[in-house]
Amino acid sequence: MNKQNIPDIVIQRLPIYLQALNQLLREGRGVVSSAELGHLVMVTAAQIRKDLSYFGGFGKQGSGYNVIYLIESIRAILNLNQIWPVVIVGVGNLGQALLRYQGFSRKGFEIVLACDINPSLIGTRINGLEISDINNLEENLRRLKLQIAVLTVPAACAQNVADKLVSYGIRAILNYAPVVVKAPEQVHIINIDPVVKLQNLTYYLDTKDYQGLDNK
Amino acid sequence: MNKQNIPDIVIQRLPIYLQALNQLLREGRGVVSSAELGHLVMVTAAQIRKDLSYFGGFGKQGSGYNVIYLIESIRAILNLNQIWPVVIVGVGNLGQALLRYQGFSRKGFEIVLACDINPSLIGTRINGLEISDINNLEENLRRLKLQIAVLTVPAACAQNVADKLVSYGIRAILNYAPVVVKAPEQVHIINIDPVVKLQNLTYYLDTKDYQGLDNK
Repeated sequence: MNKQNIPDIVIQRLPIYLQALNQLLREGRGVVSSAELGHLVMVTAAQIRKDLSYFGGFGKQGSGYNVIYLIESIRAILNLNQIWPVVIVGVGNLGQALLRYQGFSRKGFEIVLACDINPSLIGTRINGLEISDINNLEENLRRLKLQIAVLTVPAACAQNVADKLVSYGIRAILNYAPVVVKAPEQVHIINIDPVVKLQNLTYYLDTKDYQGLDNK
Repeated sequence: MNKQNIPDIVIQRLPIYLQALNQLLREGRGVVSSAELGHLVMVTAAQIRKDLSYFGGFGKQGSGYNVIYLIESIRAILNLNQIWPVVIVGVGNLGQALLRYQGFSRKGFEIVLACDINPSLIGTRINGLEISDINNLEENLRRLKLQIAVLTVPAACAQNVADKLVSYGIRAILNYAPVVVKAPEQVHIINIDPVVKLQNLTYYLDTKDYQGLDNK
């Protein structure tokens, strides 16, 4: 399996498949067809089969996929058979909400470091984790050998902070800042700015249907 | 221009291009080449040209794109020449963080409705907006004629709430709940669950480099 040959868009869909498969597992299902899985995640059955074919065969034609085997295979592909430690950089409203979010630890991620520049936050605890000084970021990242950062800083300093993260060994950034952050090719960045996502959705909306705020 | 023929992945990139173009505009730039724009958003120049070619020509070969003209064109394509009103459904940690986020109004979105099921939240104000009772959702959505919802409810009720949103006229959902939410084909859903995004990033990381939490 050569990672270079698999399109990023296929990798993007795998966690969605995993989410749907886990739902099926909770419902006690043992087998699922590509048609049903596709229906659950709103892609075609052919797309499911094509995506999975990049990683070898996961089922015989006509008999469907074994749910547990497919879950374990996708988890292995995505390197999810371990707990991934994560740093949150920037503990404003959004950073605090993420620190309080219970979903990370259940899904294989543990926030082990959170830092900010604000002296009134440094040393306080949120959800049990003490907020550290961003000035100690290099020391902390090198000690903890973290590879994943969640970037929740203002747009104006996002690039500067990202550059530092990369130089301290971070190789994957989940970027909430509303700005394009650049990094060397070997560093993977996913932009999760809600405005960018909303601006994607409005393409599909019909402006003629909309009556404006006059009715408020 | 037939919306059916343009791949979703192209539409997904347009807001990113817009973000980069706005940065260039703030820096006083009048013209940008596909190579430079591609460098800013980390796609190839050929990809930029191909994506933009779906919407007609935006520049002459060799002379680059006019930044302002390209911004205005992309804004028109994405229906951003209006303020889009948005409802936030679920005012927990994340919903509250989004309500306090200043970035929406600057980028063409206004949160005009926020609702929750929690009696201790209903009637309180966050960032000037009074939290309404989710039981009044149908009445409020029909009155305000909203098309866009941000879904920040627990996973267990996400599908049920999404079904209601769709039946009340919502046509685009930004889904933060960590669950696959289904909707009819004419409704567009973007999943923004951070765990799914992190599980995408771990694919690219090297598990061998990681020393575990022993060093903490």
